[in-house]
Amino acid sequence: MNFIVYLAGEIHSSWRDELKAKSQTLQLPVTFVGPMENHDRSDNIGAEILGEQPNPVFHDLAASNINNLRTEILLKKADLVIALFGETYRQWNTAMDASTALAWNKPLILIRPEKLHHPLKELSEKANVTVISVDQAIKALAYIFEQS
Amino acid sequence: MNFIVYLAGEIHSSWRDELKAKSQTLQLPVTFVGPMENHDRSDNIGAEILGEQPNPVFHDLAASNINNLRTEILLKKADLVIALFGETYRQWNTAMDASTALAWNKPLILIRPEKLHHPLKELSEKANVTVISVDQAIKALAYIFEQS
Amino acid sequence: MNFIVYLAGEIHSSWRDELKAKSQTLQLPVTFVGPMENHDRSDNIGAEILGEQPNPVFHDLAASNINNLRTEILLKKADLVIALFGETYRQWNTAMDASTALAWNKPLILIRPEKLHHPLKELSEKANVTVISVDQAIKALAYIFEQS
Amino acid sequence: MNFIVYLAGEIHSSWRDELKAKSQTLQLPVTFVGPMENHDRSDNIGAEILGEQPNPVFHDLAASNINNLRTEILLKKADLVIALFGETYRQWNTAMDASTALAWNKPLILIRPEKLHHPLKELSEKANVTVISVDQAIKALAYIFEQS
Amino acid sequence: MNFIVYLAGEIHSSWRDELKAKSQTLQLPVTFVGPMENHDRSDNIGAEILGEQPNPVFHDLAASNINNLRTEILLKKADLVIALFGETYRQWNTAMDASTALAWNKPLILIRPEKLHHPLKELSEKANVTVISVDQAIKALAYIFEQS
Amino acid sequence: MNFIVYLAGEIHSSWRDELKAKSQTLQLPVTFVGPMENHDRSDNIGAEILGEQPNPVFHDLAASNINNLRTEILLKKADLVIALFGETYRQWNTAMDASTALAWNKPLILIRPEKLHHPLKELSEKANVTVISVDQAIKALAYIFEQS
Amino acid sequence: MNFIVYLAGEIHSSWRDELKAKSQTLQLPVTFVGPMENHDRSDNIGAEILGEQPNPVFHDLAASNINNLRTEILLKKADLVIALFGETYRQWNTAMDASTALAWNKPLILIRPEKLHHPLKELSEKANVTVISVDQAIKALAYIFEQS
Amino acid sequence: MNFIVYLAGEIHSSWRDELKAKSQTLQLPVTFVGPMENHDRSDNIGAEILGEQPNPVFHDLAASNINNLRTEILLKKADLVIALFGETYRQWNTAMDASTALAWNKPLILIRPEKLHHPLKELSEKANVTVISVDQAIKALAYIFEQS
Repeated sequence: MNFIVYLAGEIHSSWRDELKAKSQTLQLPVTFVGPMENHDRSDNIGAEILGEQPNPVFHDLAASNINNLRTEILLKKADLVIALFGETYRQWNTAMDASTALAWNKPLILIRPEKLHHPLKELSEKANVTVISVDQAIKALAYIFEQS
Repeated sequence: MNFIVYLAGEIHSSWRDELKAKSQTLQLPVTFVGPMENHDRSDNIGAEILGEQPNPVFHDLAASNINNLRTEILLKKADLVIALFGETYRQWNTAMDASTALAWNKPLILIRPEKLHHPLKELSEKANVTVISVDQAIKALAYIFEQS
Repeated sequence: MNFIVYLAGEIHSSWRDELKAKSQTLQLPVTFVGPMENHDRSDNIGAEILGEQPNPVFHDLAASNINNLRTEILLKKADLVIALFGETYRQWNTAMDASTALAWNKPLILIRPEKLHHPLKELSEKANVTVISVDQAIKALAYIFEQS
Repeated sequence: MNFIVYLAGEIHSSWRDELKAKSQTLQLPVTFVGPMENHDRSDNIGAEILGEQPNPVFHDLAASNINNLRTEILLKKADLVIALFGETYRQWNTAMDASTALAWNKPLILIRPEKLHHPLKELSEKANVTVISVDQAIKALAYIFEQS
Repeated sequence: MNFIVYLAGEIHSSWRDELKAKSQTLQLPVTFVGPMENHDRSDNIGAEILGEQPNPVFHDLAASNINNLRTEILLKKADLVIALFGETYRQWNTAMDASTALAWNKPLILIRPEKLHHPLKELSEKANVTVISVDQAIKALAYIFEQS
Repeated sequence: MNFIVYLAGEIHSSWRDELKAKSQTLQLPVTFVGPMENHDRSDNIGAEILGEQPNPVFHDLAASNINNLRTEILLKKADLVIALFGETYRQWNTAMDASTALAWNKPLILIRPEKLHHPLKELSEKANVTVISVDQAIKALAYIFEQS
Repeated sequence: MNFIVYLAGEIHSSWRDELKAKSQTLQLPVTFVGPMENHDRSDNIGAEILGEQPNPVFHDLAASNINNLRTEILLKKADLVIALFGETYRQWNTAMDASTALAWNKPLILIRPEKLHHPLKELSEKANVTVISVDQAIKALAYIFEQS
Repeated sequence: MNFIVYLAGEIHSSWRDELKAKSQTLQLPVTFVGPMENHDRSDNIGAEILGEQPNPVFHDLAASNINNLRTEILLKKADLVIALFGETYRQWNTAMDASTALAWNKPLILIRPEKLHHPLKELSEKANVTVISVDQAIKALAYIFEQS
């Protein structure tokens, strides 16, 4: 049995690489999927495929057509979603991915620094597990497959 | 036929009152529901009902138990969700309510200032309608019931 | 018990008025809902609410944001959909409304002239009943409530 | 992970061959499915299997029994639907396939020439992505699997 | 709170009248719905509405288009289904209505003479309650609303 | 808007009366439903309606046919479930009702004495709110409808 | 892509063997599943596993516990159901399997002799395809996978 | 075809080993999944991953976050659930797993000693099969795959 895990969160750091490496070390039966991590490509993919758009709002709409299509297909395949929040970005798209998972009855591990506990309190309460680091997330993930 | 509309968004301003008043003026067949709008009561309701909690994180968890229960029941009844975003707050709970609506196949009208188009691009793309003011939202809402 | 029926089809003729009148004569326990029937208003509602759009494609997209919101909410409430096809228009939106009904497990009465049997054969096969006139549709509708 | 893509649209040209060839060149992890592409066989399959039918309407009904069975099974397996519209045919069955995908919460890429933007506006608004060529569709599809 | 109960079964005897009378005597908060009970009208309704059909098979198909439409709409509204089997008829349509209820997660009370226990064993095992008379069915129904 | 609340739990004490009285005092827009509270009637209803059964196991099966039918219909109507656990009884049926609510995506308020926190830990974690008394449950319930 | 087909129908003849052989000859990508075909074993499996039952009705209930469990698991896996009706048996369980498939939105091929068209009219109308022989069923099945 | 079976029940004895060994002997096409069977690890996993908690109630909540995540993911994958009850433990979590399976329309085999028939009567009535030993459960399981 193999499990698919969608990694939702900012695409500015390499947190996914860390998480995948740890999972690989533990040989977890997991395939990771996620968004386009090249930030510029992600922002411009709409214009690239659909052509130049009349203004920045439509530029973003076109990009989101393409990015949301990718998210929808991969998120649908996921057995679990791990969403990471940090202090820097607005992350409304991360909140959307995490909430969509829960609304689709897919379990969610939420990674967030403790200082963000207040603005994330509602999402955290609904998540299956709230942790403060990739390390804790990996432990919760590994436990799913652990045989005593 | 009466329709239930859930109003998601910050509870610091009286934007819901404005929206409800406009709807009433137009005599729309709509009942509005939403979160507890007294911010302090909302933040402390967990401690009030369940008792003092050991620390701020648990204080927020207890409040979210109670607030999320309210949201879940009322959101489930909604035929439509209107979510308002502004520049001031983190609004990850608003993003959660808006995304949950979409994931539950409930239509969404998103109200946001144009300058927030970039961080809200993904949610905006999935919303049925994105507007910049309560006035535009009311017009889109009223159109649903309009007879030529 | 009251039933809600969504009337899908072109908004250039008054076929809905005929159908509603006949239903009323028979005193059927039915409330009819449907799209905006003022064709110009329907086409321009996007620009009217959301503002002038950069080009005709975006003009249509904006209108469809608003019109599809209306369709989604009303179609969701429907217990039955009646879709009328004629020879004049492309009616891809009518096909969309009719198919959505079926995909949402809502029954469908399809009204079409016999000469359109070939291009409508797939949709007709999936519809509950295919008739050639509003009169026949009303009879099928009335039969639902008839007591022997 | 392999993905199944249903190709909906007219069966008079070889547009699917072009799309599949491009996908293969890019080595996308995709299996394509679709309707019977031999137009005469598709139209006559009902009579062939079920026997001669009393008139052209029943001839079409019998064929649609068989063709719709195929569509239903393959469409259900699909992770994504790509629907192509052109100017020549009525394409109400294409609209049905595309709309069914959306109603079943399966993502849709819509390919249509820009001059058809007006009659396809409602379907286009609901589609995940609207493009004007097989090339653009392939790019949107490929992006789903692209690793930065 | 009012409950809707669909009465599935043969339309040759007046068993429904007996059941409704008993329910009314007990003042149960129940509305009963069911098929057309005039057997000839039921069999001929297709020809009546859609016109004469080429042969008996199509005659039955047309009637079933209309009758199944009625069943689908009323069964969908039902909170409970009561299905009665007797020894005389084939009752494959009754088995279909009863099974559809269960498959749609609607509870089912099955009324059948004990001597039919063997051919009905699978359906009986899946039914919520199996009884041998309308009297027993009414008692099971009444118990739902009984306050101690 | 009226809400239906299913009260799951032992039928040996009058805890439901206390809860309903408090709700009435607060004039909450709630209708309460629940199981047969006459314990003997509940245990014997199968034999009473279906006749004497061959042994105690079948006696219980017959009673459960009838009681589970009632639970299923009323639980399906519920917008919220409140489940009470105490120390005296096995309450596996209460656990079943509470868990069914959650699995059907209905919110759950769990009432249990703190000393039962360990054996109820899994159910408590999944419940929306865990409280220790009817009073706390009523407060959480009332908060849903409270306007600031 | 492999497809699973559930074969519902009497277990007194070897019609399944004929169907499987034909499918194998055509090398269709299909795995067939179905009920226990040893009629005595099927009838007695309840007593065999659960022990002697008090009377024939409970004997049948026990067998149906076991047989229905098998049907449920295998039917759930099916992409398509083929149901065969003949003149000899009551076949209410066959009607249940066929109807359950349709109610679960699984396509159905119905095989029945033409002389049974009247009692099977409702089920036939809802089935995707109605044929009169295993041969015709195989052709409809094979067409699903045929490439022009 | 391989089937996944979730084994719900106490983690104090080795009943799962017995069941798996018997299944392996019969070469059933089954993969078994279940909870963490090391009781201490299960109870303390929350503290281990998330850190020391303020009191025993939160200690259990943290453990349940982690354990429920595992249960949710594995239970979702299951085609069948086997739940074992014994006399010693409260087993409210076992009742939760068993009921969740049924509520998610997954079949359930219930293993319980006959002397527990009364407190388990409601759950037993809803289960597909109720047996008294692992041996009987294995027989019911094996029958699913048996070819005559």
